[in-house]
Amino acid sequence: MRIGLDMGGTKTDAVALDRDGRIAARARIATEHGADGAVATALRALEALDRGGAARRPASIGIGVPGQIDGGRVRHAVNLRVTDLDLGGEVERATGIPVRVENDVKAAALGASALRRGARADALSEGASRAADADVIAYLNLGTGTAAGIVAAGRLWRGAGGAAGEIGHLSIDPAGPVCVCGQRGCIETYTGGAAIARRWGRGGELPVRDVFDAADAADPHAVALRDGLARGVAAAVRLLVLAVDARTIVIGGGLAALGDRLLAVVNAELIPSGAASPFIRSLRLAERIELLPPASAAAAVGASLVGRGEPVASSPTLRT
Amino acid sequence: MRIGLDMGGTKTDAVALDRDGRIAARARIATEHGADGAVATALRALEALDRGGAARRPASIGIGVPGQIDGGRVRHAVNLRVTDLDLGGEVERATGIPVRVENDVKAAALGASALRRGARADALSEGASRAADADVIAYLNLGTGTAAGIVAAGRLWRGAGGAAGEIGHLSIDPAGPVCVCGQRGCIETYTGGAAIARRWGRGGELPVRDVFDAADAADPHAVALRDGLARGVAAAVRLLVLAVDARTIVIGGGLAALGDRLLAVVNAELIPSGAASPFIRSLRLAERIELLPPASAAAAVGASLVGRGEPVASSPTLRT
Repeated sequence: MRIGLDMGGTKTDAVALDRDGRIAARARIATEHGADGAVATALRALEALDRGGAARRPASIGIGVPGQIDGGRVRHAVNLRVTDLDLGGEVERATGIPVRVENDVKAAALGASALRRGARADALSEGASRAADADVIAYLNLGTGTAAGIVAAGRLWRGAGGAAGEIGHLSIDPAGPVCVCGQRGCIETYTGGAAIARRWGRGGELPVRDVFDAADAADPHAVALRDGLARGVAAAVRLLVLAVDARTIVIGGGLAALGDRLLAVVNAELIPSGAASPFIRSLRLAERIELLPPASAAAAVGASLVGRGEPVASSPTLRT
Repeated sequence: MRIGLDMGGTKTDAVALDRDGRIAARARIATEHGADGAVATALRALEALDRGGAARRPASIGIGVPGQIDGGRVRHAVNLRVTDLDLGGEVERATGIPVRVENDVKAAALGASALRRGARADALSEGASRAADADVIAYLNLGTGTAAGIVAAGRLWRGAGGAAGEIGHLSIDPAGPVCVCGQRGCIETYTGGAAIARRWGRGGELPVRDVFDAADAADPHAVALRDGLARGVAAAVRLLVLAVDARTIVIGGGLAALGDRLLAVVNAELIPSGAASPFIRSLRLAERIELLPPASAAAAVGASLVGRGEPVASSPTLRT
């Protein structure tokens, strides 16, 4: 049994995978904040999984965390209110089980890739050959911020120092809005949930959904924000194809809950730009997009794969 | 002995590598255009190498060509005036030696990576382990057009369909110049030798050098073009770091001959943007850039590595 935990700012999703890669147990619990809270959350998630007896004596634990990871240490996980914590070491000492920690978007990318492959082969089983599938899959996370994870032949692409996939901070317009990172016109200023909420400025629990509703009612500010989101996502898709030639771009994160409403505006951006260029058209960008289903276990499944040693987290993960 | 040919629109650079990866012979000849011309050029290059006796009975031939490659076929190699040619098959039939063909920028990327690794280890020798070096190197070709090749652990990253590295057609400004591809503000509209020459509009044999000279003399049109080139190259560097986290970006192609004059303006673009963001600053972008030395044999050396079966060219290479 392999445990995977996806620790979000609000909830933690936990799965136990059996040797055949099947989800034997799943639990969702509230996340506690702070260093002690994060460790306690991990231990409570293990208990919750164990309630059904499925997660007894797991071989490994993997944890996906929204922050910068350096070895097993978590640094600057703002949404967890953790600035520096040896989360892997603490959970390992408390349980006696080997623990690996990875950035949540990278873990989710691994999970999304494995779940897609799992539909065709037994990709999640312990004996699965990683090299069998040479597909390049990018996972584009549209959450509070924007980042991607790239998986080739079932392996996470981390790059020289773990910055691979941090495409939210590439500028697509020198006259665009100022980003929290200090640059102008970063993709994340158009696509980040926090950036959209800030520019919308009307509060609400689901500000991006409110923007879409108001845009449907022809509110000009909302239309501008919705069109900007579409432009930013389309730019991210083009970038993931022209830089790494991802065959499939799986869109996940909170904004993926917009479903077809999101896809419709993104496709409207991608298809005209394709029509202008035979080269871009030949890439069939719109056809490469898939939405992660709501309540997908991809992030927790990916964390369990991290736990079993895939990938070897040898270099630090950089996050803003 | 392994032969590598880099077939450019004007000249063809040919090398013969011995088993230890040393350049045993090198020759430069004029390129003939058209389908028959391309085949004749390859055969003349082999003769030129053979003159010293070094290239007798090579084990393989690899050819880098500025165009779209589909298996061994060359398609749309505009600078060679070739629209469709089984170059690999023709040269193989004429010589009895196995031939592989690859896009020239991708071959050059492989060569630039191998030459860098060769300085530290015996990376070019037949027995060299490719996995020994997990470095990610990007080769950014600033020639008539702009494209990159990405090499990880000594292997070319082609992506799902060979489009990986075609970053010249990513837009960095929705209000930018119209690109030959039909989009606006593509990186190549700022950095492509052909695009700069067109926008400069004064002819000359080395229009980009003329632009730099005129910019030094404060010609405002030239200053705008030079600053645009710097912005475009800086955007390409950021992109290659934030998408794939290339540890080193080797700049080659005709514009690399500008040397320190090019580096100075690119660094001036990269360093202020870094200063605005601790995250971008932490990536040390300017420090990652290297210029390919003038008259480097990287492209022909890379072609010889393609010839020895590295990489397996299983998917088509897309070019505009």
